[in-house]
Amino acid sequence: VEHEDAQRLHTLLDPLHPADIADLLEQVSDSVRAGILRLWKDGIDGDVLSELDDSIREDIIDGLDAAELAVAVRDLDSDDVVDLLEDLDEPQQEAILGALDDAERVVVEQSLSFPEESAGRLMQREVVMAPEHWNVGQAIDYLRRQEDLPEQFYHMILIDPRLRPTGYVTLGKLLGTKRATPMLEIAEDSFRTIPVDQPEKDVAYAFNQYHLISAPVVDADDRLVGVITIDDAMIVLDEEYEEDMMRLAGVGEGSLSDSVLDTTRGRLPWLAVNLATAIIASLVISMFEATIAQFVALAVLMPIVASMGGNAGTQSLTVAVRAIATKDLTTSNVWRVIRREVLVGLLNGMIFALVLGFVGYFWFGSSIIGWVLALAMVLNMVVAGLAGTVIPVALEKIGIDPALASGAFVTTVTDVVGFFAFLGLAAWMLL
Amino acid sequence: VEHEDAQRLHTLLDPLHPADIADLLEQVSDSVRAGILRLWKDGIDGDVLSELDDSIREDIIDGLDAAELAVAVRDLDSDDVVDLLEDLDEPQQEAILGALDDAERVVVEQSLSFPEESAGRLMQREVVMAPEHWNVGQAIDYLRRQEDLPEQFYHMILIDPRLRPTGYVTLGKLLGTKRATPMLEIAEDSFRTIPVDQPEKDVAYAFNQYHLISAPVVDADDRLVGVITIDDAMIVLDEEYEEDMMRLAGVGEGSLSDSVLDTTRGRLPWLAVNLATAIIASLVISMFEATIAQFVALAVLMPIVASMGGNAGTQSLTVAVRAIATKDLTTSNVWRVIRREVLVGLLNGMIFALVLGFVGYFWFGSSIIGWVLALAMVLNMVVAGLAGTVIPVALEKIGIDPALASGAFVTTVTDVVGFFAFLGLAAWMLL
Repeated sequence: VEHEDAQRLHTLLDPLHPADIADLLEQVSDSVRAGILRLWKDGIDGDVLSELDDSIREDIIDGLDAAELAVAVRDLDSDDVVDLLEDLDEPQQEAILGALDDAERVVVEQSLSFPEESAGRLMQREVVMAPEHWNVGQAIDYLRRQEDLPEQFYHMILIDPRLRPTGYVTLGKLLGTKRATPMLEIAEDSFRTIPVDQPEKDVAYAFNQYHLISAPVVDADDRLVGVITIDDAMIVLDEEYEEDMMRLAGVGEGSLSDSVLDTTRGRLPWLAVNLATAIIASLVISMFEATIAQFVALAVLMPIVASMGGNAGTQSLTVAVRAIATKDLTTSNVWRVIRREVLVGLLNGMIFALVLGFVGYFWFGSSIIGWVLALAMVLNMVVAGLAGTVIPVALEKIGIDPALASGAFVTTVTDVVGFFAFLGLAAWMLL
Repeated sequence: VEHEDAQRLHTLLDPLHPADIADLLEQVSDSVRAGILRLWKDGIDGDVLSELDDSIREDIIDGLDAAELAVAVRDLDSDDVVDLLEDLDEPQQEAILGALDDAERVVVEQSLSFPEESAGRLMQREVVMAPEHWNVGQAIDYLRRQEDLPEQFYHMILIDPRLRPTGYVTLGKLLGTKRATPMLEIAEDSFRTIPVDQPEKDVAYAFNQYHLISAPVVDADDRLVGVITIDDAMIVLDEEYEEDMMRLAGVGEGSLSDSVLDTTRGRLPWLAVNLATAIIASLVISMFEATIAQFVALAVLMPIVASMGGNAGTQSLTVAVRAIATKDLTTSNVWRVIRREVLVGLLNGMIFALVLGFVGYFWFGSSIIGWVLALAMVLNMVVAGLAGTVIPVALEKIGIDPALASGAFVTTVTDVVGFFAFLGLAAWMLL
């Protein structure tokens, strides 16, 4: 398509959803992307910008002048503008803020004044509300008079004279009820407000847990300042999951379109931690050099116990990290979960001890090596279950993200115990 | 609270959201749960049942008689009843179906006839629709006349005389527009229907990608058969993530409230695969027994290279699995991504080769061991980047879930290459 055929490009791209256009721009090579942008500049509107990865978004915004930017962001809701702005550099932020009209600029600047990753950043300021004493007819007439309703709203929020939200009415109820019915009568039973400084992680949890569609955001005086809708919460949920998954695997933040250098830099610290772990394991092994020199079979078999422990530890760890994130693992059941993990480790340890015992016996013709393998295996699997649960719970208690740091600790424990138990038992039983 | 004080229990539990009650029931011990159920049976309504983990839900349903079940499920929307039913055993399914009235039972049985994890299972059958030639006033009057509107609906779906959906109108637009306006005029531009047999994974992807709130489901003849709302899609997204994360860690399906035996059984296959991997690695090591017997230092250092490769491979693998799930990694950019991962492996490999070279040199006073470590490290990190991307992509191509199987393959590759490169180079350079 890159024969400079702008006409053809229009025909192909115009019917696509902004999210698909953004994916396409992310997946093509740099030169093709530059070509598309040259031929199809007016296609890059605010919706497409919102959907792009950070690194590519910055590139594209750099290529637009102030007037083009202004056109691009004009139609976005305030929360989308904030989302667009918060990852950009100062000068790009200024350029976009300059392109907004005064009223909208003030709103966006206010939102940016809330802490990052808080409800305040997530909410949109366009709220559809009604005094609580209205009836259905008044509410509908009010909505018909509004020129500029938000693109997405699912509730009408009821407020008292002090602007405090007191309930909400779903649009479905509003439509299905006679005009004379008071709004209060059809308000939903369950009603939750979100403090403006609540971390967005907790906001996403609340949406997921209570199946919310939208929720009013209130300031410290309980006054209504905005509304968060489920599509925003879904995006946060998505990000939180991705973050947990990437952190568990030791991958820093980043996306597929990051450069080689950025990616290398992002992964380096985790590999460095792993190197330290591996060297600690090596130190343990070096304590038994004399034993290994006598029985080389030990060197052949020793990675098995450590590897099985590492795997079992990762299993327990992943379950614990997820359960902590979904608030399923709390102080009320932590002991039962630890006991369960230890018992599972014991059972699986015994099963594989049996298998490995035979492997050791038949491979090396030594029942002692079989016994050493089996015992070390049971021990390491129990320790793996214990460490895989206790370490993330303890990290969470002292305020460190368990997804971030648990892996290195658990592997260190299972490596050290694995090598030490196997080689130590061997030294004791064989010598 | 377990002094049989039913009064007190009511005061405490009644104001809680069903999801919180379900969490509470999951987290307390078996005996406390039995006590709560005895004292508070009428509190267990359909909403609470919907929120419970499978294993506990089955227990509780076993404890209810048919009349109690009937009361519990009567107020649920059809999709929630389906969701409740699909994980239950035959006799429990029968019991609940028997408790429904005839019309609802037919609807639920129809839904159950669609394949598991398809849009048909996810959708609710209660659809709010309007002929496309209506105007706003007619639609509102129609809604007012309805006795039994679904609990949640966000759009009115427009249909042609053959019951095929042709567009939809958001309730916000419906409320904000004069009665005389034709519905077609305020229908949304972008409109997507979901085939009834589409896998729920793809449904969740579409909701996430296109920020949908609800979408009509159509049968093979394009006729409207139901509607899926964003809260259902959010639950699927949640499950898909959890599944990917658990599979990457080699944990089978299951929840915190599963028994020790079930959990052991779920994790065993993955540990067995890991054992096979570890034994293959041991076989590689055993090829070099003679070399190790001469230079025990090799046994001390050899786990380092394998471990770093395993870690780097897991990093690449996790990024690839995520990118495949979000459809960010496609045939159009797969070569660029592979090249990037290999280059990242090369760069990080060189950095850690430098570090490890010095470690080997100063620890064992041998520059040859330093060189062997460094070269093996670079080689294994490059292979890790390559394997970590190619393996999941290839598995996906042949129709196997990359999250499920990649880990074992990638670790096998990095272990084999790690031990072989390090010991092979050592044998060649030292002897």
